[in-house]
Order: sequence, then structure tokens, then C-alpha cells
Amino acid sequence: MKMTGNIKKILNNYESDNPGVKANLAKILMSGKLAGTGKLVILPVDQGFEHGPARSFAKNVLGYDPHYHFKLAINAGLSAFAAPLGLLEAGAGTFAGQIPLILKMNSSNSLSREKSAPSQAITGSVSEAIRLGCSAIGFTIYPGSDAALDMITEIQEIALEAKDAGLAVVVWSYPRGGDISKDGETAIDIVAYAAHMAALVGAHIIKVKPPTSFIEQNEAKKVYESENIPIGTLKDRVKHVVQSCFHGKRLVVFSGGSSRGKDDLLKEISELYLGGASGSIVGRNSFQRPYDEALHLLNQITNIYRGK
Amino acid sequence: MKMTGNIKKILNNYESDNPGVKANLAKILMSGKLAGTGKLVILPVDQGFEHGPARSFAKNVLGYDPHYHFKLAINAGLSAFAAPLGLLEAGAGTFAGQIPLILKMNSSNSLSREKSAPSQAITGSVSEAIRLGCSAIGFTIYPGSDAALDMITEIQEIALEAKDAGLAVVVWSYPRGGDISKDGETAIDIVAYAAHMAALVGAHIIKVKPPTSFIEQNEAKKVYESENIPIGTLKDRVKHVVQSCFHGKRLVVFSGGSSRGKDDLLKEISELYLGGASGSIVGRNSFQRPYDEALHLLNQITNIYRGK
Amino acid sequence: MKMTGNIKKILNNYESDNPGVKANLAKILMSGKLAGTGKLVILPVDQGFEHGPARSFAKNVLGYDPHYHFKLAINAGLSAFAAPLGLLEAGAGTFAGQIPLILKMNSSNSLSREKSAPSQAITGSVSEAIRLGCSAIGFTIYPGSDAALDMITEIQEIALEAKDAGLAVVVWSYPRGGDISKDGETAIDIVAYAAHMAALVGAHIIKVKPPTSFIEQNEAKKVYESENIPIGTLKDRVKHVVQSCFHGKRLVVFSGGSSRGKDDLLKEISELYLGGASGSIVGRNSFQRPYDEALHLLNQITNIYRGK
Amino acid sequence: MKMTGNIKKILNNYESDNPGVKANLAKILMSGKLAGTGKLVILPVDQGFEHGPARSFAKNVLGYDPHYHFKLAINAGLSAFAAPLGLLEAGAGTFAGQIPLILKMNSSNSLSREKSAPSQAITGSVSEAIRLGCSAIGFTIYPGSDAALDMITEIQEIALEAKDAGLAVVVWSYPRGGDISKDGETAIDIVAYAAHMAALVGAHIIKVKPPTSFIEQNEAKKVYESENIPIGTLKDRVKHVVQSCFHGKRLVVFSGGSSRGKDDLLKEISELYLGGASGSIVGRNSFQRPYDEALHLLNQITNIYRGK
Amino acid sequence: MKMTGNIKKILNNYESDNPGVKANLAKILMSGKLAGTGKLVILPVDQGFEHGPARSFAKNVLGYDPHYHFKLAINAGLSAFAAPLGLLEAGAGTFAGQIPLILKMNSSNSLSREKSAPSQAITGSVSEAIRLGCSAIGFTIYPGSDAALDMITEIQEIALEAKDAGLAVVVWSYPRGGDISKDGETAIDIVAYAAHMAALVGAHIIKVKPPTSFIEQNEAKKVYESENIPIGTLKDRVKHVVQSCFHGKRLVVFSGGSSRGKDDLLKEISELYLGGASGSIVGRNSFQRPYDEALHLLNQITNIYRGK
Repeated sequence: MKMTGNIKKILNNYESDNPGVKANLAKILMSGKLAGTGKLVILPVDQGFEHGPARSFAKNVLGYDPHYHFKLAINAGLSAFAAPLGLLEAGAGTFAGQIPLILKMNSSNSLSREKSAPSQAITGSVSEAIRLGCSAIGFTIYPGSDAALDMITEIQEIALEAKDAGLAVVVWSYPRGGDISKDGETAIDIVAYAAHMAALVGAHIIKVKPPTSFIEQNEAKKVYESENIPIGTLKDRVKHVVQSCFHGKRLVVFSGGSSRGKDDLLKEISELYLGGASGSIVGRNSFQRPYDEALHLLNQITNIYRGK
Repeated sequence: MKMTGNIKKILNNYESDNPGVKANLAKILMSGKLAGTGKLVILPVDQGFEHGPARSFAKNVLGYDPHYHFKLAINAGLSAFAAPLGLLEAGAGTFAGQIPLILKMNSSNSLSREKSAPSQAITGSVSEAIRLGCSAIGFTIYPGSDAALDMITEIQEIALEAKDAGLAVVVWSYPRGGDISKDGETAIDIVAYAAHMAALVGAHIIKVKPPTSFIEQNEAKKVYESENIPIGTLKDRVKHVVQSCFHGKRLVVFSGGSSRGKDDLLKEISELYLGGASGSIVGRNSFQRPYDEALHLLNQITNIYRGK
Repeated sequence: MKMTGNIKKILNNYESDNPGVKANLAKILMSGKLAGTGKLVILPVDQGFEHGPARSFAKNVLGYDPHYHFKLAINAGLSAFAAPLGLLEAGAGTFAGQIPLILKMNSSNSLSREKSAPSQAITGSVSEAIRLGCSAIGFTIYPGSDAALDMITEIQEIALEAKDAGLAVVVWSYPRGGDISKDGETAIDIVAYAAHMAALVGAHIIKVKPPTSFIEQNEAKKVYESENIPIGTLKDRVKHVVQSCFHGKRLVVFSGGSSRGKDDLLKEISELYLGGASGSIVGRNSFQRPYDEALHLLNQITNIYRGK
Repeated sequence: MKMTGNIKKILNNYESDNPGVKANLAKILMSGKLAGTGKLVILPVDQGFEHGPARSFAKNVLGYDPHYHFKLAINAGLSAFAAPLGLLEAGAGTFAGQIPLILKMNSSNSLSREKSAPSQAITGSVSEAIRLGCSAIGFTIYPGSDAALDMITEIQEIALEAKDAGLAVVVWSYPRGGDISKDGETAIDIVAYAAHMAALVGAHIIKVKPPTSFIEQNEAKKVYESENIPIGTLKDRVKHVVQSCFHGKRLVVFSGGSSRGKDDLLKEISELYLGGASGSIVGRNSFQRPYDEALHLLNQITNIYRGK
Repeated sequence: MKMTGNIKKILNNYESDNPGVKANLAKILMSGKLAGTGKLVILPVDQGFEHGPARSFAKNVLGYDPHYHFKLAINAGLSAFAAPLGLLEAGAGTFAGQIPLILKMNSSNSLSREKSAPSQAITGSVSEAIRLGCSAIGFTIYPGSDAALDMITEIQEIALEAKDAGLAVVVWSYPRGGDISKDGETAIDIVAYAAHMAALVGAHIIKVKPPTSFIEQNEAKKVYESENIPIGTLKDRVKHVVQSCFHGKRLVVFSGGSSRGKDDLLKEISELYLGGASGSIVGRNSFQRPYDEALHLLNQITNIYRGK
């Protein structure tokens, strides 16, 4: 497919990256139903690590099989499929070349207790991402955690290695731990800050949660009020987050959160779209539904991002 | 021996592995009395490390000599023999080529106190596994331990090196420490989760304990109940654990536990077999018995896995 | 531009450095309006990391775009532009060769709590500084912090690598943490000490805050009094800090601090100049003002350092 | 000297080692008065590190000079001389080729407090052992210490490197720290366990203290009683320890302990010999005595091991 | 200058060192007024790191300039000049070849609080010592500190690298921290022990403080009393320390301590000389005095060591 001017413009924002990285970003942006639109929808399947197999796959037992998720992502015309090492290894050969892959390189789990220093185990490497034919690596940081400085130092080292290998870098920036309150994890000031930090450490694609209108930090509150930063609607808040990512020069995608009603989800994604989000990452909301229902839902989501 | 279609099918599940790894997996699956069945029985002798020499070998003093265990495993027609560095070094020359070897690369001991952060010392390396002619390396992780993230990061690094060297990776996944209760260590939700984690970090063969019907975590309990996941019998639970390992696409073997009555053990193994277990790891239950009795018992066990 | 004798004299003070380092120091000293004067004014934009995007850029929303800062620094005729990895990546291609760049290699943030052991995450590398065409790397140490020994050990390793690559080394030396009081962070004895430590670890350019006349440590107080060290005026104190940097043989620049009235700022900078400061680093006081106003202010600042 | 069948048989037990390691083991077993007997007596001089110079050498001030110990070991016809880096460096040139050397690669000291996590500092390296013409490296582990897992991981790495360089590996296995009681440090179950652990980590020569009949761990006590393991005499206990080292396939030597009456010492060593000990390590009991007396005593000790 | 037999004899004590190390030791022993005597006086200037610039240089402001110290050491005919990286960098070019240099590779400071685990930051590297034309590296260990094992492990690694590069190794062995009392830091048993530890880790030149007659450890006290070790005079104690350094086979120099009366200092140094000290390290007592006075004092000190 010939590259659209739209995509060329986005790639130009990554002006310091080598051709290998640009080609892989282009591959993601030129795949699936959203090819050429500059938008992207990603299927992530790391919930088995995070919540265990039963909580992830018992609702739709086909999901125990890694091939199921590859097929779902390919047939739904998504932009990329993201998963931990073992899961990618179980399908990367069969589905080679059919969808861009993102190796999630660190993982949390619900068996380890977290307290104030939540962190993740390293569960993959750049050399394995290359061996599996991935287009990008994914890495989670927990801004606010007492382990945050270490996690940021880790992504620095990994991103350097990934970029040298021509891989794109996707950073999940999820504030938690330390002095961050539960509400603060999705507060607008914290989410915008977390997104900005991801941009500053050199992420090509930034993933955050949809922010609420709550403001966590007093110093930030003063500025949001004195400068009248609009945060009343989700659209406003998304706009602010996108702005916080180098004035929109970095791709920012939003997670779908826990499984819930289809209408709620689609309404939220419409607002994300209107706010200028680059796309969505939809996991449990898709693969925990029956296959046809999931395909239909993902079609509705990609349609939103195609502006239909 | 010509490879059976059975084994080819299993190897196909390891679709991202290099020919070296596949050859070593095949070697294990084509060795001993279970050759070609897709099942495997392994003799592990790391109890000396874990409980000390007297508790391990005083019952059958021939076991103080490493050669004894090599002979037992070979003569019983087992699929592989697993032990720490020193023990393998003491027999790898004499018995070279007679049975696939697994170098257990980390080890716990009963002299170190554990509390909430149980861990193991690294006691071997990939280069030593190669020097000793091993087919695989073994590594234990303790999901739930406050040291779990570090252990998972370690296996990531070691597995990467092992796979590059064409060695198969066996992960002992034994939940303990942190907030995990004593009953929780063998709870069905925890064991299935631990097995799934081992699959996600890229294990070729997963070793867990036979799970009980106890459920440790509340969030998991809700799902086991709402989705009516059958866990009433050991057979049911084993089926669930196998399903949690990529829908049966990874080999899952179960430990024999502490030494006990022969009938109990064989009954348990029959249930494991019926639940779809790939095999058993039987240590103290074999080598603490007199030689002929052990051979007879192991013969009964392999017969179970041969469906006789 | 032909190099002035002024600059040659400064370069001679770096008598153990290789020609690569000297060329990069010369590049900074021969750029912008202060070229050849031996003085320098640097624009740093790491406040987004330190305080978040809203607190940094909401006052002047053009600042969300990295290009804005490159343009501001270039058009104001500054000596160099300093920023974290992601921000430099977003403009280093477009503005290549127009202004010397300093890659800030570690970064703090307001989401991580600090207590007695404040530290920073490593967010860049020497190889990336080279890839982006930088002239120098920047690194912060926190003398007094319980993490200070580790931070100093880090800068030792990084500075070694940077110098081998011909890059200049700028050290932000900001006392805090441990037993240092809030007032102590800018106390004259502490600031002079922090500047001296930066010189001893091999910094080419040292950045500290303008010191107050407060004295933090009793042992120091005795000497300031017995030796009648003049610290009554800012000019006196700056002179003492410059003296503490190898009798003026190292370049010492002072930060502008939080945003405030223009007149206050210019008055302070005049005193810095009279005390013998090598220059200023001015961040929020410039980019949070409207563009023309910022240009005008920076022009006034460079004029001070040109002795006009 | 032509190698005895005795020694060939011992070397055959190290069946996985390369010719370099075997040659160095042979060198130790073919040196001094015990050459060819399969027994060995080693002079260790690391007490200066452990207790300081006065407590070690004031009784016999000639011992302050490293050369004294080289001469004593050579003239007494011992099998090897073991010491820390600095001490070996001070004589390895003068006495090159006259006695096999063992570089003690980690060291404790009485100035550092230990509490529950006793450990040792690394004070040598394999490359230095090679440079000094050593035949082996020595390393202490403290089973039971809260630092034990780290120490075991260290010896794994060092032993790998040493074996690759053809050096033999001697492990001092001294339980202490953690939950181990003072009496437990020499309890028969603990000493046998510690010796077995050293064998499992791949030691060629294992050094432990002569065990008492005390039993530290309840789980072990049950087995010692139910299996009627004889531990009444030192001879019995040594036999049990030797058995715990791969049924006698590894060399096991015993320390002489603190300085004391000559008769007591010789009586103890006779029992060690009768129990099947491979030899003794005698430090303070030799070098704190006058030279001639020490020579005489060491002669009596080697005579015991020659079965005279 | 032709080498004296005196020096050849000393070099023979370093029998395991390569010609590069011996040449650098010879360079120090053949420089300045003490050339060929086997004695040495070193000027160390690391007080700026340890106490800050004002406490170090305000008394004699010329000392703010690194060149001042180079000149002082050269014109006083000293044996070597020791300082941290930045200070050496500031003069190593100008004064190349005029005096042997020692790069002090770790440094403490008065801003970091210490408590029971005092340590130092690494502030230099062997490759920088080579680049600056140094003859030796210097490193401080704190025996007794809870960080002592780590510091000893560090010097092991650094000394190995230094020796391979032909550099001599000077170890500052300063007991402190842990259970060491304030008086214990200079107690005779502790200082002798600390000196012995430095010898055992492979130091070529050992630096300690002049010991008092206080005895810190009970176990040691027993031996000092039972063996009647003379410690009544400083001369006696120095003799004991020298003996503790391989019976005088290692060079041992003593620090001058805090600045004080000239007569006291000279009297102390005379006793050091009579006790067999290899020399002195004199910092603040020289550079805090006016230049001519300092030159005169240093001349008196070197005269003492020349036996005049």
C-alpha cells in the first residue's frame, strides 16, 4: 500500500529516529483497517500475567489458546498485537507477517504484593523481539512508585537497545505506588504528567488510562485553575494529554480498562477520538466476548477512529 | 527410533524455537519407555540440597553415590535425569549418552531461613550445561515471594541464553512467600496461575505440584464460581492447569511430593494422567525405596502414562 | 569565527582534556551573542520532567512543542540548549547545527517521593548524545543526599565515557536530602562545597544555585568567621564560589530559579556577573513569558554578560 | 614421580573435569610427604585477616614474615599452602614451584560486625591465581547465613571461571548466621549438610570443621534416630560426612581449630583418619609453635595420614 | 639517577609484581629529596572533598588553585602528589614529568551522613590514571564499617586492574563505623590490624594514622598483654605496625593528621622515623601554611627521613 501523506507527516515527528524505527512505526500505521489514517487500535493480551488465567480466559475459554488472539487481532483488522514472550512464541511462526507484533518486555502479577514500591519483572529482551519478528517492544513504568527511578532507568537502557535494532518503543505509563492516591492514578494532572514523562524518556507510542477530572497535586491544581485549563469533559482531558505529549507530536493511545458494557465503552472511545487520541488498546473488552461479538465491537471501534 | 506423529505434533507447538531446542525436546520425548508417547517421567535428585544428605539418602544409603541415581533413571527407562551441578559432574562422563540430562540451575536449602522473600541460589550456568552434555536446564521460580520479580527476571536472562544454545527450558513454578498462605501454595487458582506464568516466561516444560480444590484469592474465587470451572476432582484440576498452559500447547509435569504409600501415589498419578498431565517428576518416592522396589514402582508409573 | 584569546585562555585551563572535548567547549563558547566573551547563557528545558507539563507550559502553551524551545534558544543567540532525551530527539534533526546541544542524562520528577535519599533516574546515554549531535552531557548530583555517593559514582562512570567521546561534562550540583536543612540547600558554605565537589569529579562546566549568606555547618562557620571570608553580598558569595572552582579555572554558571519579576532577575544576574560568574541558566523565567518578551529579556541578560 | 593407582582412582571420580583441573589436583596429591597416598595436609595462613596480626603472629613473631610460612609448609612436606592475595604475592616468586598454592579468594575479619548475615569480602580473582602460579582457588561459604544464597551464587561464578582455567576449587563450608545456633555450627547434621552443599556446587576439595554429636534441626533428628545413623564417635561422624560427599568421591579435609594441646590435636586427627578423612588443614596449631616443634608436629600429622 | 641498592632491596619485596609496577614504585622512591633513601613523603590534597573548600583553603587562599599544590610538592622535593581526578586534571599537563602522581580513586565528603556504614564514592578510574600519567592509584577502605566488605571487594577489583596496567596501589586503611569506638579508630590493635588487612589485599604502599596505646578489642588485649607486645611509645607502636605489614616488606606511611603546632608535628614524625615508618603523608600541615613556611617545614620533615 502506498503511504499516505498523513503517515509521512507523523513519521516526520520522529525526526531523530533511524530508518529501521520509522519503517516499523509505518508498518503499524499502515496495517489493518486503520491503515493510512494515523490512528491505531492494538490488542494486548497480558492479562493472564496480571490477573491469572481463569480471571482472563474462563469467560471465553477459546482465549486459553494463544492462536485465538492472533486470529482475533488479524481478522478484526487491528494495527498490532501485544503480548509477553511465551504467548508470542506460541504463535509468531504460524501468523508471521500477518500483523505487527509488540513484545511486552516487563510484566506484573497479582501474586506479588506491591505496597509502596510496585514494579514489574523483566520478561523479555530486545534480541527475542528481533527473533520473533516484532515491530516494537512494550514496557511499563509506574511513575510515583518507590521503584519508579529504577524502572525509568531500565526503559532508558532497553529503549536505547531497541532503537539501535530499529524497533519502535511503546511505553505503558501507569502512575501508582508511593504517595499517589487511588484516585490519583487516573487524575488528569497525574496522567498528563505520566504521558509527558514517557515522551521525555523517548517513547514513540505512549499508552495511558483515560483521565478523570480529579486533580491530585496541590501545586498542579493552582496552575490548572489559574490558567483555566479545560478538563471538564473527557474530550478536553484527552486534548490536554495529547498536548502534553510534545503538542501531539507523539502517538498517544488509551486503554479500555476493565470489561463492561459495550455502549459505555464505545461512548468513551468516541470522546477519546474527539479529544485527538491516536487510538485505543482494547484487551478484556474484546477477547472476553464471544468471537463474533468481539469482531463486531472491534469493527465499531475502528470505525470511530476512521471518523465514521 | 523413528519419530512418531505424536511427537511431531508436540514439537509443532514450539513453533518459535530453533532446531537445537526442538532436537533436545525430541530427545527427551524419544527416550526411555515412554519414547514416542508424548509423555515423560523425570527423576530429580536435588533433595540433598533442599533437605540435606541424611534426610535424603539415609533410608537407602546407596543414594549417597551419584552413580546410583544415574543407573536408576536409566534402568527404569525414564525420560530424563535432573540434578544440580556437582551431582551431574559426578556421573555425566560415565553415563554419557544414556539418558537426557537436565541441569538444575538454582537451588534452595533448609539452612537458609526464608520468611516472606524465599529465593534460591544460582548453582549452575548454561555453559556448564553445555559442557556436561545436558538437553535442558531447570530453574525454580517462587511466584508470590517478595523475591519473585527478581527470580522471574533471572529466568528470563537464563532462558534466553539457554535457547540460544539449543537447550530446552524447564521451569519449576512453586508459589510461596509474600502473602501466599500455606494452603494457598497448592490452591487450584494459585497453581494454575503459577503454571500460566511459567508458560508466559517461555518455559518449554512446566513443573507444578498437584493442586487441591482450595481457592486462595477472592478475585479468582468469583470467577471460578461464576464460570463454574470444574475443580472437584484432581482430574478436573489437572485439566484446568493444562488448559492454563496455552490450552495444552506446553508440556506440564507434576511433582510426586513427599514420600508415602505406593498405592496413594499410583492413584494420584492415574488421576494426573486422566487429567491430561504430560508426566510426573518422581524423586524421593523412588530413590528412597530399595532398588528393585523403586524399579517396579517406576515401571508402574510409566505404564500409567502409556495408558496401560 | 576566529577564536579570541579570551577563549584560548579558558581552554588552556582544561589542560588534560582531549581535542574533542576542547572543540566542544569552544563550540559552546563561540556560539550566539556571547561568542568569544568567555561567558555563556544556556536554556534548559527539563521542567516538564521535574514539575509536569501543566506547571511548566500552561502559562505559555507554545512551550508544549519542543521546536518552540529550540527556536527560542537559537533566536535569542544563546550559547547552548539543554534538555532530556525525548525533547532533544523531537528537534535535533530540524535544528541540527544551529545551536550546541546538552543532553541532560538524569532527571527527577515530582511524582516520586524523596525523603532523605533523593536521587534521579538515568534518562539518557553517551551514545545517544553522540547520535543527536550534542556537544555536552549534563548530570545532576545531590550532595548531602543518602544517595549522593551512588550519584557521584555514576557521574564518574558517565563522565569518563563522555570525555572519551569528546563530549563536555556539565554537572548540576544541587545539595539536598540527608541532614541538609531547607535553608542549607542554598547556604554559602554548602553551595561552595557542592561546586568544589563538581570540580573535583571532573566537571567542565558547573551549575549551582545563587547562594545566600546563611551558613549551614558549624565547622565551616568557624572558618568563615576566623578567616573573614566576605559573604555579605551576592557578588561576594559568587566570587567565593568561583574561587572554590579551582580559583576560577572551571566555568561556573548559576540557575535563574523559579519564575518571578523581571527586574529582580536582572538585578540578580548583574550581581552574578560582577562576582565573576561564567553565565546563567535561565529556564522558566524565559519560556514561560510570551515569545517577544522572552527574547527581550534574554537579550538583556546576554547584554549583562557582555558587560554592557 | 610416577602417579600411583591410588591417585588415578581419585582423579577418576572427577570425571567431568578437564585435564587442567585434573593435573592440578594431581599436583596437590603428588606433593610432599603424602604424595601418592591420596591424603593431604594443607597449611592455611588467613588468620591475620580473620583475627588480626597480633592474635595470629605475636606468639611466634617469625610468622609476621610471609616467607616463614612458605618455608614451614615446604620443609614440613605439606601438600599445599593456602593464603590470601597479598601474602601469596609476598612469596610466590621466591618459592615458585616448591609447593602447590591455593589462593583464598574471600576473607572475613573481626572488625566487621556480622549479626545474622555474616559474609566475606572478595579479596582475589582467578586471573591473579593464574598469575601467581596457583593450583587451586579457595572460597568460603556460610550456609545458614542470611547472605548464604549470595555467597553460593558467587562461588558458582568463580568456580566456573576457575575450572575453565584448569584450577581446582576448594570450598570452606562453615555454617553460621541466620537461625543456626552456636552449637549448631558444628552439629553433625549441619556439618554433613554443609559438606554436601559444597559437593553439589561443584567443589573438588571440601573443608569443614570436625563435627560434634549435637543435632541442630528437628527434621534431621528424626532421620538420624529412625535410621540409626552412627554418630557416637568422631570417627563415626567423619565417616558420615565423607559419605555425604558423594559417597567419598570428593576429597574432604578437616580444620584443626583453635590452638591447643598437641596430644588432643593428634588424637583428634587420628580419629579423622580412621573415619576416612582425606586430610587436615592445620594453621595456628602449627605456625604459632616454635619452628622445630611445628615441623615435628606436622611430621606426626602426616605420619598419621600415612597410616603409621 | 642510578638506583641505590637500598631501593633494589625494597623492590625485591614486591616479588610478584610486573616490571611496570616495579618501575612506578621505583619512580616514587627515586624522586625528590628522599630519592634512594627508601623513604617517602607525599603531599595529598583531597581535603577539599573531605571538608569543603573554605575549611581547606581559606587559611592560605593560594591553595584554591590546583597549580599551587603541584608547585609546592615539586619545589619541596616530595616523593609524590596525590589528589582526586578533577584536581589532577587541572595540572597534570603543565607539570607533566615533574613529580609522580597518585590518583585518589574514591572520596568521602562532609555533606553525606555516615552513621554505621561510612563509605566513599568512586571518583576516578584506572584508565584516567593512565591518561593523566599517574604512577599509582590511591583507595580508602574503612575496616569496621558496615560497608567494609563492599569497599574491600572494590579495591580488589581496582587493584587488579591497576596492577595489570603497571600502576602501584596505595591503600588508605582508616578504621571507622560499625562497632568501632571513636578511640578505637586509632587504637594500636585496630591500626595494626587495618594495616595488615591492606597488606593482605595486595597494597604496595599502606597509609594509616599514627596509633595510640589504647586497645579496642578484648581478644586482642589478652594477646598484647600475654605476649608483652611493647606499645608504650609511638616508636614502639609504629614498629608493631610496620611488623604487621609483612615484617616490613611493605611500605607504610603515616598521616600527619589535623593542622597544629610545628614542633609537635616534627616530634611526632621523628618518632615515626625511629619506629621504622617508610614516610609521611602531610596535607593540611603543609598547604595551609604560607608557602615559604611550608617549604621550610617540608624540608625539615624530609631531613628527618634522611636521618639528619
